[in-house]
Amino acid sequence: MKIAVLGTGMVGQAHAAKLSELKHDVTVGTNDVDKALARTEPGRMTEAFGVWAKQHPAVKVATFAEAAKDAQLVIEAISADAVIDVLSAIKDQLDGKVLVDITNPLDFSQGTPPRLTVSNDDSMGETVQRTLPQTKVVKAFNTVNARIQVDPKSLGSGDHHLFMAGNDQAAKDETVKIAKAYGWQNILDLGDIKSARGLEMVFPLWAEIYAKLGSAVFNYKIVSQEGI
Amino acid sequence: MKIAVLGTGMVGQAHAAKLSELKHDVTVGTNDVDKALARTEPGRMTEAFGVWAKQHPAVKVATFAEAAKDAQLVIEAISADAVIDVLSAIKDQLDGKVLVDITNPLDFSQGTPPRLTVSNDDSMGETVQRTLPQTKVVKAFNTVNARIQVDPKSLGSGDHHLFMAGNDQAAKDETVKIAKAYGWQNILDLGDIKSARGLEMVFPLWAEIYAKLGSAVFNYKIVSQEGI
Repeated sequence: MKIAVLGTGMVGQAHAAKLSELKHDVTVGTNDVDKALARTEPGRMTEAFGVWAKQHPAVKVATFAEAAKDAQLVIEAISADAVIDVLSAIKDQLDGKVLVDITNPLDFSQGTPPRLTVSNDDSMGETVQRTLPQTKVVKAFNTVNARIQVDPKSLGSGDHHLFMAGNDQAAKDETVKIAKAYGWQNILDLGDIKSARGLEMVFPLWAEIYAKLGSAVFNYKIVSQEGI
Repeated sequence: MKIAVLGTGMVGQAHAAKLSELKHDVTVGTNDVDKALARTEPGRMTEAFGVWAKQHPAVKVATFAEAAKDAQLVIEAISADAVIDVLSAIKDQLDGKVLVDITNPLDFSQGTPPRLTVSNDDSMGETVQRTLPQTKVVKAFNTVNARIQVDPKSLGSGDHHLFMAGNDQAAKDETVKIAKAYGWQNILDLGDIKSARGLEMVFPLWAEIYAKLGSAVFNYKIVSQEGI
């Protein structure tokens, strides 16, 4: 499948590498291709994109608009401060498509752990859906770190949960297919895009557990009587 | 131990019954004793307190102030709209004591699922601690339903997590003792009272999973490489 991965950070790199490994035709979208490919200094938790791109020659790199234009499915992993501007600008290229929104609404301006820019009465997932009314937005993957997102079996044999939310059932089915190809066994559809609130508001607990463990390699398993 | 349980709802009833069963000297605190004991209509998810009190003759019932005055430890399970007023009024009776705050900051005024009255930059746990600067406040138990709070082994052999947060280590150690007596095996201390934010902001996810399962009998197990 032709898949666009919007964003060159840790999450974008993880999905692009995995989807390419799964033989999808992957294009990473970014703001300025030359500038992204010229990056050789790694980020806080990210490989320098210029270095990463050389290690993944099968993955194409294009502008956000070019990447989205021909894609059949879009994975969106843009930082919270930029995502709405970027999506508004390429709105036409996203009409009618499935867009998997992974962005957590994090504001690092007051230090770490970050606060949420939106919570309680709204969410990033809902904001993305409002920005792109003709796009089928699915919130997913945002509750775990990038490595577990694309390789859930690397932790506890994969016996933990992925959550998703979105208004369009076919779009969620498509996202489930991708998630299963990544190795996810336990996938919980929590309803329409409003449920992105719960998926995003669990971030502070994630950050507290991360601080406690000193590791981002963990996830939640829902233990229930029903054994879901 | 002399323990006060503040609140006559589902959570107060569960802790008072269990602590009494564990041979503690338990007094339930309420606003108006006669009025509470006269209640024979069950609540949405709660036994009528008048009926419950008759079924638990070893548990005393007193005003909030009387219950707190002689207590060595206080379990606070008052509804979000009343808790700060009640605690302010009995501040002197709580000085120097351990108070376990279970209240989730839920606002049902706009329907269900409730929104949070405080989140992101503050929490109910921090508000309670600011209200009672001489009290050792521990946020705990609020991430699971009342039955699991006091009987964790009734779900998945108890293989799931309890979280707590608070500024005073001795108070948290005391709370761990109570939790272990209830049957908790996996207890995660997430730091000072500021970490109440994560414990409270996970509520929307809880509500979404509750809606999905049609059951409140579930909890999170943290799956990690460290096996905490």
